[in-house]
Amino acid sequence: MRTAVLVEPHQFELEDRPRPMPAPDEVLVAVRDVGICGSDVHYYEHGRIGDYVVENPLVLGHESAGEVVEVGEDVTTHEVGDRVALEPGVPCRRCAHCKHGDYHLCEEVRFMATPPHDGAFTEYVSWPADYAYELPDGVSTTEGALCEPLSVGIHACRRGDVGTGDTVLVAGAGPIGLLVMEAARAAGATDVIVTDVVDEKLDFARKRGADLAVDAAAGDLEAAVDEYTDGAGVDVVVEASGAASSVQTSVDVVRRGGTVVLVGLASEATVPLDVLDIIDNELDVLGSFRYKNTYPTAIDLLAEGVVDVEGIVEFESTLDEVDDAFRRAMDPDVIKGMITLDS
Amino acid sequence: MRTAVLVEPHQFELEDRPRPMPAPDEVLVAVRDVGICGSDVHYYEHGRIGDYVVENPLVLGHESAGEVVEVGEDVTTHEVGDRVALEPGVPCRRCAHCKHGDYHLCEEVRFMATPPHDGAFTEYVSWPADYAYELPDGVSTTEGALCEPLSVGIHACRRGDVGTGDTVLVAGAGPIGLLVMEAARAAGATDVIVTDVVDEKLDFARKRGADLAVDAAAGDLEAAVDEYTDGAGVDVVVEASGAASSVQTSVDVVRRGGTVVLVGLASEATVPLDVLDIIDNELDVLGSFRYKNTYPTAIDLLAEGVVDVEGIVEFESTLDEVDDAFRRAMDPDVIKGMITLDS
Amino acid sequence: MRTAVLVEPHQFELEDRPRPMPAPDEVLVAVRDVGICGSDVHYYEHGRIGDYVVENPLVLGHESAGEVVEVGEDVTTHEVGDRVALEPGVPCRRCAHCKHGDYHLCEEVRFMATPPHDGAFTEYVSWPADYAYELPDGVSTTEGALCEPLSVGIHACRRGDVGTGDTVLVAGAGPIGLLVMEAARAAGATDVIVTDVVDEKLDFARKRGADLAVDAAAGDLEAAVDEYTDGAGVDVVVEASGAASSVQTSVDVVRRGGTVVLVGLASEATVPLDVLDIIDNELDVLGSFRYKNTYPTAIDLLAEGVVDVEGIVEFESTLDEVDDAFRRAMDPDVIKGMITLDS
Amino acid sequence: MRTAVLVEPHQFELEDRPRPMPAPDEVLVAVRDVGICGSDVHYYEHGRIGDYVVENPLVLGHESAGEVVEVGEDVTTHEVGDRVALEPGVPCRRCAHCKHGDYHLCEEVRFMATPPHDGAFTEYVSWPADYAYELPDGVSTTEGALCEPLSVGIHACRRGDVGTGDTVLVAGAGPIGLLVMEAARAAGATDVIVTDVVDEKLDFARKRGADLAVDAAAGDLEAAVDEYTDGAGVDVVVEASGAASSVQTSVDVVRRGGTVVLVGLASEATVPLDVLDIIDNELDVLGSFRYKNTYPTAIDLLAEGVVDVEGIVEFESTLDEVDDAFRRAMDPDVIKGMITLDS
Repeated sequence: MRTAVLVEPHQFELEDRPRPMPAPDEVLVAVRDVGICGSDVHYYEHGRIGDYVVENPLVLGHESAGEVVEVGEDVTTHEVGDRVALEPGVPCRRCAHCKHGDYHLCEEVRFMATPPHDGAFTEYVSWPADYAYELPDGVSTTEGALCEPLSVGIHACRRGDVGTGDTVLVAGAGPIGLLVMEAARAAGATDVIVTDVVDEKLDFARKRGADLAVDAAAGDLEAAVDEYTDGAGVDVVVEASGAASSVQTSVDVVRRGGTVVLVGLASEATVPLDVLDIIDNELDVLGSFRYKNTYPTAIDLLAEGVVDVEGIVEFESTLDEVDDAFRRAMDPDVIKGMITLDS
Repeated sequence: MRTAVLVEPHQFELEDRPRPMPAPDEVLVAVRDVGICGSDVHYYEHGRIGDYVVENPLVLGHESAGEVVEVGEDVTTHEVGDRVALEPGVPCRRCAHCKHGDYHLCEEVRFMATPPHDGAFTEYVSWPADYAYELPDGVSTTEGALCEPLSVGIHACRRGDVGTGDTVLVAGAGPIGLLVMEAARAAGATDVIVTDVVDEKLDFARKRGADLAVDAAAGDLEAAVDEYTDGAGVDVVVEASGAASSVQTSVDVVRRGGTVVLVGLASEATVPLDVLDIIDNELDVLGSFRYKNTYPTAIDLLAEGVVDVEGIVEFESTLDEVDDAFRRAMDPDVIKGMITLDS
Repeated sequence: MRTAVLVEPHQFELEDRPRPMPAPDEVLVAVRDVGICGSDVHYYEHGRIGDYVVENPLVLGHESAGEVVEVGEDVTTHEVGDRVALEPGVPCRRCAHCKHGDYHLCEEVRFMATPPHDGAFTEYVSWPADYAYELPDGVSTTEGALCEPLSVGIHACRRGDVGTGDTVLVAGAGPIGLLVMEAARAAGATDVIVTDVVDEKLDFARKRGADLAVDAAAGDLEAAVDEYTDGAGVDVVVEASGAASSVQTSVDVVRRGGTVVLVGLASEATVPLDVLDIIDNELDVLGSFRYKNTYPTAIDLLAEGVVDVEGIVEFESTLDEVDDAFRRAMDPDVIKGMITLDS
Repeated sequence: MRTAVLVEPHQFELEDRPRPMPAPDEVLVAVRDVGICGSDVHYYEHGRIGDYVVENPLVLGHESAGEVVEVGEDVTTHEVGDRVALEPGVPCRRCAHCKHGDYHLCEEVRFMATPPHDGAFTEYVSWPADYAYELPDGVSTTEGALCEPLSVGIHACRRGDVGTGDTVLVAGAGPIGLLVMEAARAAGATDVIVTDVVDEKLDFARKRGADLAVDAAAGDLEAAVDEYTDGAGVDVVVEASGAASSVQTSVDVVRRGGTVVLVGLASEATVPLDVLDIIDNELDVLGSFRYKNTYPTAIDLLAEGVVDVEGIVEFESTLDEVDDAFRRAMDPDVIKGMITLDS
């Protein structure tokens, strides 16, 4: 099977690899769509993300969906022909985190496209059946692939306990920010404010229904939030930009007793935070890491038409064009690219 | 001011009463719209609800909205001309329930149209300013009055922790059931099943967006739910009919680990429940009483157009026609009547 | 290995069975202590519990602890010689319940001594390593075996969210009730009221620290609770007797906004409950089924001496005396018997 | 009545002020015991705390208890002779925070000894009856005064959801840290680690039952925690020192998915925090501000002997000696001083 392998930064090689055999509890999936995530681009450019270093050739891609072409002997839940979205992290199922339902915190998780685990820019992936979620008619494999970033948004909103009538500020209008916005609406938020520093992204957020879109660099964010909320501040901030200044501002624009969810991976690990403010206003500052138990919800939301994800895909390429696709995806103005394989 | 007073069952008298003076923390409100609730009709027909007995002439009506015409000397939050919805229960503000934010459980609550407290079928009501919520442009006083039953729905959904992607069964398609349905949608429920025993009500629920509407008397509800949910059962049941058989069935159609919210006041207090089922499936069976902290949310949802309440008002009458209006409202097929006063 | 097999009601046979081989992820445990649970006695007397019917010879016993004598090839967490308590239910690890951390609700759970799964009245049990919890020095295998009923108590208190300063009423002073009492104290309850209908059990509860012990049959329980709580009612009731009358009374003695946890398996499945009371007082009525993620906590509490479980063991027998032990355990006045095997 | 008034930094004057008259909903309390809090000392030394500036003569003291000597005309809950602890913050009872039960976040709160509101270093205080909590026999007014700092500890543990079996690290062994330790034990924590930089304080923490007491300045705290917790980290950190380095370390010693509660007011508002760590380990970093609904719990815990507070009072002085008492309290090694008035 053809497989795009990152052999060193800025260089993919298309290899012909043997098609895997599904283990008894796995399904073999012919991959149809794989999104290009910011982390893929980061590995492509730098060969590492923090402590995760690409030391051996690596297959990128963890936002994927496809069609079941073979089922392992113990699998009773799937059939050949089922279209499925693949949740890219499979945990150990045995540790305390797994037993508590926090399987996303499992230290032994095998996560696609995170060294040393290969990802989905390839023709076939064999995957545990219970992490391959069937897509109903009406949900495309493109949408199936986008269940992954949508899951990040759903999980962040759950962490922040976003609920009916809430006012939510989403910092950062990239793909995660936009999907946080969708998830917040789906969770009942009636008012969504979006910030970014790129005018086009703010315009796009407005088109997708942001009640207010503010240039975070213009310096009057706190005033804009005050005006919009009659001085109260927002109920929840979801920080999806990772910019240190945005993390700092989050604490200022949230209401007393409100919640800041940190989901955007910071370029700098250490950010000076106003601890007195966190105490005096009794804030919750919550990390949000990947997701758990989100795929069924994401698929439900897509099936019901509650959220729109396809609109954030800006271009599609084939596996043969993967190098070119990554070069396009490096443009910070591009929201999301997708690799599509023949069916 | 003209006031409709229930002097004995089935008999209103229109009295001329002195207009109240607002206390320092109150606003005087010219009433514009007052909904006719099932409990009003019950007092009208029977002169009592359980332990609450109408021993003296009583003004009914607790679903009301109007216009501020005078403000008490300490009130800084309201101005003459503001249109407001009145939350009908004002608590003591001092007991443990109040301090914990469960002010709806305050034993000293003064609740409109519950003996001995008069309600809103009158031209003017003086009311604590903090329980008079301003309506923004675009939210009518009819909608303001309907914030009360909508609040019952919002609170029931909060009790059941209805969230994104949930499948919810609403038992009973009267005004409360229909507004539970709206609140469940607003909270992120992607699938709503409605039951009733009246075909017209089931049709109306379908028109308002129920994914499935089942005749609970037809005897195949459990099978219908099984089919719809692939045997899993629903995440949350909100029992809004008060029928003993429906309360019993709720336990059967909810999934393992799911939640049953009881909101419909039963005609019989004592209902045989399958306790073994509650234990073996580790269910939550939760009473839901009135509401707390719902008015701002209800108004937000109306302002954003997320929920539609006006559609459930079937007729409007004037204060002079109150007797006739109550006779119409006694028809079980009528969903909701509204008394409208001149502005 | 010697194994006590229930071949028909009231009849054990001691068979010699082959010692099992541990699977790669299992440990082989030489059983040291196995408690006799009410459910074991029920199978012994009646050959069934509800829908669970003993159709083939069955090994009873699910409260067990012992010593690791062999470890499977993949096990890195245990060593020969470790003393361990065995959590008797092992779930599928793959279903939605398991992924959410509600593994005790897994429909595919393999639970000791529940047909067709054998239990622990035998010399050796092979068991998944992650459900075999190491006992530290100072915690005996008798205590290890009692982690099982203690887990029922811990889980019930978690379900009821028992916390610092709470007043808790425990209905039923059998082994579960007594261990609920221990768990409630450990969770911060400052006041514990116990009810039963047997004087000796009430005395025993008093000796173990109940602040008030009331004869539920004497008819003045509600008055006694009112007096003790100044008319407020208790914060949480944990119903551990299973008596229909006790389930009914639970709703009366809990405070407004309080919680009733149902854990005692009712002799009659259907109990008439005051639904109006549940709604008007906005109660939570919660089933509590077995337990999840309790063993580490139970062991901690035992290691720190926070709870005392050995005191509830009234007699110990050997495997050879199992028939006699079960006859003694049938006496309703006996709290708990234990089968001890040679080390 | 004699009253100690802070007229400028480092200078009290004993004035004779008129005894207040209780409003209809108030009780007049003859003060018996008033604790000297770190914030009192800070005002005494610096004349301000952050934005709170002592511009006019101020009566300090907010940890107080005494005896009711007169009751307002509407008060039915108290009698002359009742001994009471005074909760020092009285909220507006009308804002959204108050209605939600978060009355401690009320912006209009009137808090003793916070400019411009006078405190309790005086012979008589008139106070709303519902914020004057009756002390049962066996709870002294000294303990009543200490309900205030104990409340800080209880609230911090509630914020951190400390529960049965938890391992908790308390940073800072001053009075707040020590009372957090008591509250954590009462909430079920089985393991408590304490850190400080003063040997005497660590010794004192050990004497009061800390399982481990570590010198935070010695540089091996993370290693010590790793060893104690087998590499897992603690479930909850309660940061009660306010030292920037301690705030930073909190994030390192907590387990994945764990919680850091910030309660100690930082000397520097802005602390560089490892945001990547918060995200990758999905931590909760929670501010904890004062307390709400803690006094009844605190009194329960004292009445049952679950917590010991008197041990932390190191000296008692009279109102006449207040200047001297504050000079003693400025010594960082002194844990807590108490002003006692004649009965």
